[in-house]
Amino acid sequence: MIDPMAFRAQFPVLDRLAYLNAGTEGPLPAAAVHAVRERIDLEAGQGRCGRPYFDSLVELAGKLRAGYGSILGCDPSEIALTGSTTDGVNTVISGLDLKPGDEILTSDEEHPGLLAPLGRARLRNRVSIRVVPFVELPGEVKSSTRLVACSHVSWVGGKVMDVAALVATGRPVLLDAAQAIGAISVDVHSLGVDFYAASGQKWLCGPEGSGCLYVRPERLSDLVVPWPGYGSLADPHNPLEFEPAEGVSRLDHGFPGGMRSVWALASLGVFSEAGWDWVHERAATLAEMLARRLGERGIEVAPRDRSTLVSWKSPDAEADVARLASEGFVVRSIPDAGLVRASPGAWSSEEELEALVRAAVT
Amino acid sequence: MIDPMAFRAQFPVLDRLAYLNAGTEGPLPAAAVHAVRERIDLEAGQGRCGRPYFDSLVELAGKLRAGYGSILGCDPSEIALTGSTTDGVNTVISGLDLKPGDEILTSDEEHPGLLAPLGRARLRNRVSIRVVPFVELPGEVKSSTRLVACSHVSWVGGKVMDVAALVATGRPVLLDAAQAIGAISVDVHSLGVDFYAASGQKWLCGPEGSGCLYVRPERLSDLVVPWPGYGSLADPHNPLEFEPAEGVSRLDHGFPGGMRSVWALASLGVFSEAGWDWVHERAATLAEMLARRLGERGIEVAPRDRSTLVSWKSPDAEADVARLASEGFVVRSIPDAGLVRASPGAWSSEEELEALVRAAVT
Repeated sequence: MIDPMAFRAQFPVLDRLAYLNAGTEGPLPAAAVHAVRERIDLEAGQGRCGRPYFDSLVELAGKLRAGYGSILGCDPSEIALTGSTTDGVNTVISGLDLKPGDEILTSDEEHPGLLAPLGRARLRNRVSIRVVPFVELPGEVKSSTRLVACSHVSWVGGKVMDVAALVATGRPVLLDAAQAIGAISVDVHSLGVDFYAASGQKWLCGPEGSGCLYVRPERLSDLVVPWPGYGSLADPHNPLEFEPAEGVSRLDHGFPGGMRSVWALASLGVFSEAGWDWVHERAATLAEMLARRLGERGIEVAPRDRSTLVSWKSPDAEADVARLASEGFVVRSIPDAGLVRASPGAWSSEEELEALVRAAVT
Repeated sequence: MIDPMAFRAQFPVLDRLAYLNAGTEGPLPAAAVHAVRERIDLEAGQGRCGRPYFDSLVELAGKLRAGYGSILGCDPSEIALTGSTTDGVNTVISGLDLKPGDEILTSDEEHPGLLAPLGRARLRNRVSIRVVPFVELPGEVKSSTRLVACSHVSWVGGKVMDVAALVATGRPVLLDAAQAIGAISVDVHSLGVDFYAASGQKWLCGPEGSGCLYVRPERLSDLVVPWPGYGSLADPHNPLEFEPAEGVSRLDHGFPGGMRSVWALASLGVFSEAGWDWVHERAATLAEMLARRLGERGIEVAPRDRSTLVSWKSPDAEADVARLASEGFVVRSIPDAGLVRASPGAWSSEEELEALVRAAVT
């Protein structure tokens, strides 16, 4: 039995603030602080060289791969380590052999981090981008659609995509999982998606510049390694041959830095120790409570599903966010949507959400 | 007047080891440890959200851009922040509109981190890659050569490219500066190169996953933003239009994480405080001394110029590296070349280099 207050006590920022913005960046657990301090002492005191050092980096990267895999219900061999959701999206969009006239179908509730790579494909590969309302997406897939690229959970207000309906179309599906990984229960195999791009610094409370990309093994050969480095090669002695390394790790993006790995792993450890089922259930329950209580007080909550985001209408969202910040509530606005968005997590408390409702109503 | 021993005392690992491997990763100064500890306390205690937080990330990234720019003798607006030399190379190779049959000229002393992106261009764009001996490169440039891509300083043994001769050919030049930035004095404008890709974790003693790319302003429009994200866009509200942001920062690679910036800046600060002229002079003098003393003891030193790398022939380089490691000397082997390579820096001491010579001779 998890004690919610003991769990919450592991996040120092919550002593000071009603920190409700994991949808941007998550709160850091004390375990991550400890891991970072140990790591910098090690690197400074022992140096960063030699075979054992590099073996340890590879081992840490392997543990992180396994950590992300276990959250997504897949094997570590199906996971590439990236620096962001955007990295994962770029990997897929640049890796596919997109041709002029190919259609990518997307929704009207996507983040610029997904749309920027699509914009580039439009300009560079003369790919056609069709934008349709989020909830209508599955019905809009055509047999000629080259790729569906959209959010699993909308960053705007927390709607959840009908992934089963998307996958049933038989067309390749890339999900932006920035608001899904760590937030809701995910099993990429049951979902049946092809590509799943996620962030490490949001609901997983890892460092800036962390994330992962799941690739369905059958789809790996569809992707040319788009951003190759030393680790992408089967044989670093023959780089010009460009024979790719085995498995999805050939798509790893950037250096497997030790600091990134130990920080990300320390944060994951806090959740896996509590149990992901408990974490998801607690966060969903709190978010649902927040949405209900706002509604009871006459505030218009944006359409949402069972997720960890709660957004509400505001005549001046920017001003509301600033006012709430001055009262100790960390939330954000959604540009152009007239919404204030809160991101309660398993670390949140009923008391702070009740206080937020009171503050939002004023 | 700098006291070399006081400078050296800023690097904790040197208390324990003759750490001579900045060509792989540099030793960390105590100032970097301090900056990392302060940063993690800040992120954990204050949270990572809100406008002031993001403004501070942008400000730190700007300082880092200026720091790299000042080392390279250029304006911050000519610098993109990357995660590695390989990122910079990929940015140029993916950003140029390479066509089948285009020739990229490179040398026989290049690192897989440069060659992997060339291998991909060969496979994906059917670009032709011509490999010629390092010292003969300038004479091999043809009027039809699309791009010259090679090291400024060879990672094998420390030869320095005749950049003036390369630039005189009038063809676009991309230099791999992994063994140049922070190691030798560089002025990209005087050099006249088009693209200069560098690492932050080697001679600049920054974090893994740091680096920069200089782009000559006149060349910026030759590059399609190859790996776009939020920061690449002039208008994040209109990402599908894909109007790129002003300046070379549109090529920034990955999130401008606060931890990366403060660590990199703290390390740069140690060098700029001592003065880069002194740092370069001291490192070159020590490397020259090491090469001379090895030669005097009958060891065959690989051809080198005034740089910070010293490599020598060994019948079993791997075994020599392991033996030296057991005696407290951190050096590396160069695969397939039968060489042991040492990387003395301004932090090295005459005493440890003399001891290395004795140990190498045994």
